[in-house]
Amino acid sequence: MKQVMKLAIPMLWLAGISAVDAKPIALVLHGGAGVIERSTLSTEKEAAIRKDLEAALTAGYQKLKDGGTSLDAVTLSITMLEDSPHFNAGKGAVFNAAGSHELDAAIMDGFKGRAGAIAGVSTVRNPILLARAVMEQSPHVMLVGAGAEAFADGLDLKRVEPSYFDTQERLQQLEKMQRAEESGAAAAYAPVRYFGTVGAVALDQNGSLAAATSTGGMTNKRFGRVGDSPIIGAGTFADRRCGVSATGHGEFFIRSVVAHEICARARYTGRSVGKAAQEVVRELKAIGGEGGVIALDAKGRVTMPFNTPGMYRAAVDSNGKITIAIFGS
Amino acid sequence: MKQVMKLAIPMLWLAGISAVDAKPIALVLHGGAGVIERSTLSTEKEAAIRKDLEAALTAGYQKLKDGGTSLDAVTLSITMLEDSPHFNAGKGAVFNAAGSHELDAAIMDGFKGRAGAIAGVSTVRNPILLARAVMEQSPHVMLVGAGAEAFADGLDLKRVEPSYFDTQERLQQLEKMQRAEESGAAAAYAPVRYFGTVGAVALDQNGSLAAATSTGGMTNKRFGRVGDSPIIGAGTFADRRCGVSATGHGEFFIRSVVAHEICARARYTGRSVGKAAQEVVRELKAIGGEGGVIALDAKGRVTMPFNTPGMYRAAVDSNGKITIAIFGS
Repeated sequence: MKQVMKLAIPMLWLAGISAVDAKPIALVLHGGAGVIERSTLSTEKEAAIRKDLEAALTAGYQKLKDGGTSLDAVTLSITMLEDSPHFNAGKGAVFNAAGSHELDAAIMDGFKGRAGAIAGVSTVRNPILLARAVMEQSPHVMLVGAGAEAFADGLDLKRVEPSYFDTQERLQQLEKMQRAEESGAAAAYAPVRYFGTVGAVALDQNGSLAAATSTGGMTNKRFGRVGDSPIIGAGTFADRRCGVSATGHGEFFIRSVVAHEICARARYTGRSVGKAAQEVVRELKAIGGEGGVIALDAKGRVTMPFNTPGMYRAAVDSNGKITIAIFGS
Repeated sequence: MKQVMKLAIPMLWLAGISAVDAKPIALVLHGGAGVIERSTLSTEKEAAIRKDLEAALTAGYQKLKDGGTSLDAVTLSITMLEDSPHFNAGKGAVFNAAGSHELDAAIMDGFKGRAGAIAGVSTVRNPILLARAVMEQSPHVMLVGAGAEAFADGLDLKRVEPSYFDTQERLQQLEKMQRAEESGAAAAYAPVRYFGTVGAVALDQNGSLAAATSTGGMTNKRFGRVGDSPIIGAGTFADRRCGVSATGHGEFFIRSVVAHEICARARYTGRSVGKAAQEVVRELKAIGGEGGVIALDAKGRVTMPFNTPGMYRAAVDSNGKITIAIFGS
């Protein structure tokens, strides 16, 4: 009997550890929000977008399952979305008014409260890797323009000609908008209804949240314009309880400090992160701020609210439930 | 008797209107925080700094008394502090590592929730005027570098050669820091103990709050580095209840989204803006983030907490009480 007890106790103890070890992990991605309608999205393009979202989700989630950090998971997923021509980040980024590309990105480590951001770069193939290098290899949080490029010169990062980011589809969008602009201001703003950006928020086995966002900004944007994506607190934020990445009409998201507002509201009012995110996205709509967010809490609960017809999104929540979706329900 | 009543009522009524009309107004300024010690600050320099703070306070406050908007009051005060060589903004801005100047500024209209920010400009005499133009004359919130300069080209703003911002004192600071850098990293950071920035928060007779911040950043900063001042939510934020301008080691202020954190904490927990500001400044110190903030609530209550030996500051609160101070109490 005594012998049995000796065996039983370690086994229960091991079982207990195993249950404790199964910490929740989760990953949520977005690929931009806006006027995405079934009538204008071809079956082929929809399939291609879903495929790339799924690949980025699967790779990032595998990293979390393997015990990787949330920082590594969001970095991997964002890099893959940047490399896809279907999203407005990295390859496939929109053109600015000057006919070139200016890429912005940010990343935040919610556990350590560290962050890195870059804006206005045009020769770094994966802007998210440069943002992460600012966080990990400089004393700064944000570097912009030529200074950010100069910082990249000292790193082992893939560099490209600015034309690498060109795609025929984005060029047509620029030309269409510039033609509209010539014919009157109202028409010029009408086509800007897709706010492409890619974002990721992850929770790892250590309970650490990380958030990351990467974008080409808005088609036909003024040279030097910075949107919400690289602004810590606006488009990207994470702390120990909450991680958020946003996509939308950046000016509204900056003014409302959207990502931090969601996390602060949840923290101070006792609302869930999901409820806070839904409220803030609804409030944005009321002031004209179109877009959406993805958010995670420290239990791996996912929320993906948006106030536009569609938002490209994908998630694996803490129960392992997979979602890949484009349109509203 | 009837005649007397007829006279008396309008008089009481007028007195009542007068009391209602006396809406609280207030203005608070800072000129940077850091290691400011009596032993190293000459009597002459202290007198000159106090004089310029007082002049900026008096001019901004007069504007509020005359019924001007909080936006106009903070714009005027900041412009005067930018023109003073004693503060690290506009004339007298620090040198970056490349031996040039990169100026950042932001302004926010708390009532309308509008904001404008610029970073990395070097030919605009008063960066706060360019930030305000971004808010009022563009659909954007933030423009950086050459794009911000190009936007300025289309405006009626005073332009200068970058050398206009040079001062002998700042050049000596750069040289001292670069010599220290050559002799070892630890020494290189030791002298960076004054975080000059200028800021203003005002409440006008209509009950509108506005906040503004302008800076040359940190001496010897990496080309392209952006600190908290032009980041809406970090160094500058205002809504209908709360306005904040910060000064300090910007990277910490960005990560903690300081200005928005103060306003959100006050709003959601019922703390006063003053209490929330004091808490956040104390928490910054605990993580190594040196600096301070100025803040106002919608009743004109002023708070000016800092976690460094000194902070240049000046205020007129809603009771008309004037403070001009440098050191801690």
